[in-house]
Amino acid sequence: MEQNTQVLLAARPDGWVKTSDFEIVETPIPSLKDGEFLVKNHWLSLDPYMRGRMADAKSYAKPVAIGEVMAGATVGQVMASKNPAFTEGGFVVGRLGWQSYSITSGDGVSQIDPTLVPIQNYLGVCGMPGATAWIGLLEICEPKPGETVLVSAATGAVGSVVGQLAKAAGCRAVGIAGGTKKCSYAVDEIGFDACVDYKSGNLLKKLKEACQDGVDCSFENVGGEIMDTVMHVLNPFSRIALCGLISGYNETSPYGMKMIRSILVNRVKMQGFIVFDRTDLYSKAVKKLSHWVAEGKITYRETVTDGIENAPEAFIGMLKGQNLGKQLIKIT
Amino acid sequence: MEQNTQVLLAARPDGWVKTSDFEIVETPIPSLKDGEFLVKNHWLSLDPYMRGRMADAKSYAKPVAIGEVMAGATVGQVMASKNPAFTEGGFVVGRLGWQSYSITSGDGVSQIDPTLVPIQNYLGVCGMPGATAWIGLLEICEPKPGETVLVSAATGAVGSVVGQLAKAAGCRAVGIAGGTKKCSYAVDEIGFDACVDYKSGNLLKKLKEACQDGVDCSFENVGGEIMDTVMHVLNPFSRIALCGLISGYNETSPYGMKMIRSILVNRVKMQGFIVFDRTDLYSKAVKKLSHWVAEGKITYRETVTDGIENAPEAFIGMLKGQNLGKQLIKIT
Repeated sequence: MEQNTQVLLAARPDGWVKTSDFEIVETPIPSLKDGEFLVKNHWLSLDPYMRGRMADAKSYAKPVAIGEVMAGATVGQVMASKNPAFTEGGFVVGRLGWQSYSITSGDGVSQIDPTLVPIQNYLGVCGMPGATAWIGLLEICEPKPGETVLVSAATGAVGSVVGQLAKAAGCRAVGIAGGTKKCSYAVDEIGFDACVDYKSGNLLKKLKEACQDGVDCSFENVGGEIMDTVMHVLNPFSRIALCGLISGYNETSPYGMKMIRSILVNRVKMQGFIVFDRTDLYSKAVKKLSHWVAEGKITYRETVTDGIENAPEAFIGMLKGQNLGKQLIKIT
Repeated sequence: MEQNTQVLLAARPDGWVKTSDFEIVETPIPSLKDGEFLVKNHWLSLDPYMRGRMADAKSYAKPVAIGEVMAGATVGQVMASKNPAFTEGGFVVGRLGWQSYSITSGDGVSQIDPTLVPIQNYLGVCGMPGATAWIGLLEICEPKPGETVLVSAATGAVGSVVGQLAKAAGCRAVGIAGGTKKCSYAVDEIGFDACVDYKSGNLLKKLKEACQDGVDCSFENVGGEIMDTVMHVLNPFSRIALCGLISGYNETSPYGMKMIRSILVNRVKMQGFIVFDRTDLYSKAVKKLSHWVAEGKITYRETVTDGIENAPEAFIGMLKGQNLGKQLIKIT
């Protein structure tokens, strides 16, 4: 019988994640108990938040234990079922971990329509990252037509949706990304009005040029020096949706944010959020985004790495910004 | 005829304010034009925000020009009037500057009832600081009964009102102040449940002891290392009303805030605010607070310095935290 390939957390990273922080094992697939079903995972999602799960710092979710399967969402097909709600052959998305097979009782697992959009989209533009973009931009930033929306990590799975939602809301959308290739993609394909390359230096000057009317909404995925620089171009009464701080996830000492004063003098609202706090909006967002993707109204890119055994390296590459759009592992 | 004693801004401070950054002059009182009236200022308010007006950094209000009368609120009596809305003998509060007499057309000047509370209260508990406490706590923090409200600069003009409003809202109120004298005053007179002395070391440990259920609302007046330490005790979904950053006002390089991550993982809302943005609530707050003070329901303290010529030194003392409660200058 086929074995289950699992990626376990082997060690808590000290600074940058290393491939040796993971261990890849082959284990037998246990038999099903009543209420359970077996999923063959086709796609694994790799997301920045997973870096947080590897650490034992206090966060909004429990850390993965050493020796445990790494936490993560997959899309897969039900191969066998002792749960009447999930029938054999159906496709599902859920937090089923970095492994080729998962046994689950269905908690946090949803059925998906494989005919509407490619199934891996439920891990990206039609899944958690898309819903994150939706909730952060529309619920926290509340952009008004004519305003300027600035998005860091603009070509990532979340940022690229933020940019398109901002344009749909009648805003000027400005991205921040690393390198000319990503910036060209942001403007030419995603539809950002401008994109600033933070790797080319003079970020503040370039932000001022790209955001001549200042910034009303800042969708923050990066943190650190980039976020601190954005503080200089915020308008009075602007809003910051604090979605991620990827620049600091692998740092052993946190960046010191100097421009807190901007939040005071500009009367800024900054709000941290986690997409799973808003289950009400999550399903609404995923439904709308799926239909828009099916209708060709939303564009997206994927960076696909083959083989679950390559997930650790692909994950590290994503944390370094080597991907364009959604980083996926094709398991099977 | 009597001369007008005025305190002018002589130089923009570089780091800590010095008395030589001010110049005291005697000038003749000009005659009134139609629509104007003459106010003899009895009390001058000294407030941390004035440090911002001395600098030419971009802020929410224009800086005071060199050679101009320092900006500030006073309470005084109308001595002569060519404005039918303000009759001779009436008492007023307004932004009339650091001077013993002011001529004004009444813009931003309000009439006050000198029989309800002592007139200088309209500069403190029944004025801008009281309204600031009200708006920041009730509108931004939205405390719920049973929650813990943490207030820095707890014995200041704003903080002492925040503490009492928090208790009235059914919350546990915890203060942060400098020194045992202030902390005793906070607990014994203002009614805080606990007060942590930031000068005695081990702030984080003491905050954890004083806020065993964590912090749901943080009313931030201080910033810097104190604010950064508070980030460690924030609860999920807590709210920070960012009112002031007094610890940094005289620093030449800003403190680097390390715990921004807490805003993300705890899904915190942090909002900067300026009381004058909420004129709707300002009058409501002042009215309620004045009646509560008159009924003895709100306690407050004043630190009074005699003589407008001593305003620069008293202002510097206030920035160093030498006052208890509202810092006032008794002009006449």
